[in-house]
Amino acid sequence: MRCVVNTPDASAEHRHPRHTVVIASGGLDSTVLAYWLAARGSRLTLLSFDYGQRHRVEVNYARGIAELLGSRHEVIDLTSLGVLLTGSALTNETMPVPDGHYTDTSMATTVVPNRNAVMLDIAVSVAIALRADAVAFGAHAGDHTIYPDCTPTFVDRFSRSVAAANDGLLPEGFEVLAPFVSMSKTDIVRIGTALAVPFARTWTCYRGQDTHCGTCGSCVERREAFRDNDINDPTVYQSA
Amino acid sequence: MRCVVNTPDASAEHRHPRHTVVIASGGLDSTVLAYWLAARGSRLTLLSFDYGQRHRVEVNYARGIAELLGSRHEVIDLTSLGVLLTGSALTNETMPVPDGHYTDTSMATTVVPNRNAVMLDIAVSVAIALRADAVAFGAHAGDHTIYPDCTPTFVDRFSRSVAAANDGLLPEGFEVLAPFVSMSKTDIVRIGTALAVPFARTWTCYRGQDTHCGTCGSCVERREAFRDNDINDPTVYQSA
Repeated sequence: MRCVVNTPDASAEHRHPRHTVVIASGGLDSTVLAYWLAARGSRLTLLSFDYGQRHRVEVNYARGIAELLGSRHEVIDLTSLGVLLTGSALTNETMPVPDGHYTDTSMATTVVPNRNAVMLDIAVSVAIALRADAVAFGAHAGDHTIYPDCTPTFVDRFSRSVAAANDGLLPEGFEVLAPFVSMSKTDIVRIGTALAVPFARTWTCYRGQDTHCGTCGSCVERREAFRDNDINDPTVYQSA
Repeated sequence: MRCVVNTPDASAEHRHPRHTVVIASGGLDSTVLAYWLAARGSRLTLLSFDYGQRHRVEVNYARGIAELLGSRHEVIDLTSLGVLLTGSALTNETMPVPDGHYTDTSMATTVVPNRNAVMLDIAVSVAIALRADAVAFGAHAGDHTIYPDCTPTFVDRFSRSVAAANDGLLPEGFEVLAPFVSMSKTDIVRIGTALAVPFARTWTCYRGQDTHCGTCGSCVERREAFRDNDINDPTVYQSA
């Protein structure tokens, strides 16, 4: 049994898991992650979560990506948890989603407490049941400022906890993969471009309306990532 | 922020959390745990899980205990996860529940992969949302043989993962409590007796029929615990 964290840059050589359960939000990061893993020969199971998030339209985008990749897609219903999380603007529709930059303190209301740990632990359960030998999620360095569950420290400690919780039960060589955890979203868009990721079929906006708002923290970061790469952003935004 | 593991014996002195989210299965261990915490002055929120377990009748028992204690009770619906866990006799009704002793290797089919980590991480999410300052679960030493997520090592590593995942978000003095983790079920029945726990209103049996079967690993251990304490077992068993 092995349980390690990979935090590589895109050019490094890695072990290629045979079957990875990927937390797939339908957003840009996890979609690039899925394409990145597929390009390295991994079979994929995409796992999405409905926790009553305002932007649950993203789950449909994840399904579309799974179809494009020919991968299995499963949705975990966590709406009974979501109704208890009344302190986040993402799960409480009476709270406004803030405009601005991801790094602003005003973005604190977009924190869903312990979300990545919950999703990753469920992914581990599913991986063991399917005899998959890795779980992966698309946390990146731009998230670190306000989301502590997107840091290398979290990934490392989480991996150690998984190894203890499932001692003797994990498939040989099991890994928790967070390959983008030290990259920026700009890096991820660059990697995705090289992999021909269909960016127009991903969803980022926290507001979850018909088109991307263009002004929430998540949209602002998405726009910046395309602009900084000097490549065309195929997203339709409500605001210029 | 503090995140520590308590693994005390019953006589030790402890900090008294103001509000604890308790994973409440409706079974003997978690019910004694709830009474034990209540006796120490903690306000309680009992959290139960429906993961499609064969013995989901236990959730009704947890609700009854919450009513007796005057505590809030919430049920998290994880049935969409349960249907994927086809390798466990507890979530796959086409697999037989084995008879015998908990420590038998045949009991391996009753493992639900990563279950405690999933439930505890959801409890942490709820605790942060409710501003509760502890989560607690009733793992005990009798579980260690076949359930790696009931060990002190798991509790310690899990706590460190929680601290990283929620750095800056946890209520002051936050704790992950597993006070019975080094005790036997016999110890727990003794503690429960002193606290006047209504054992007849708890549910243990994996088979989840109208009465306790008396022969599955969970029933066998329950019977032993009463017998070893030389006190009356109020449980109605199908087999003598």
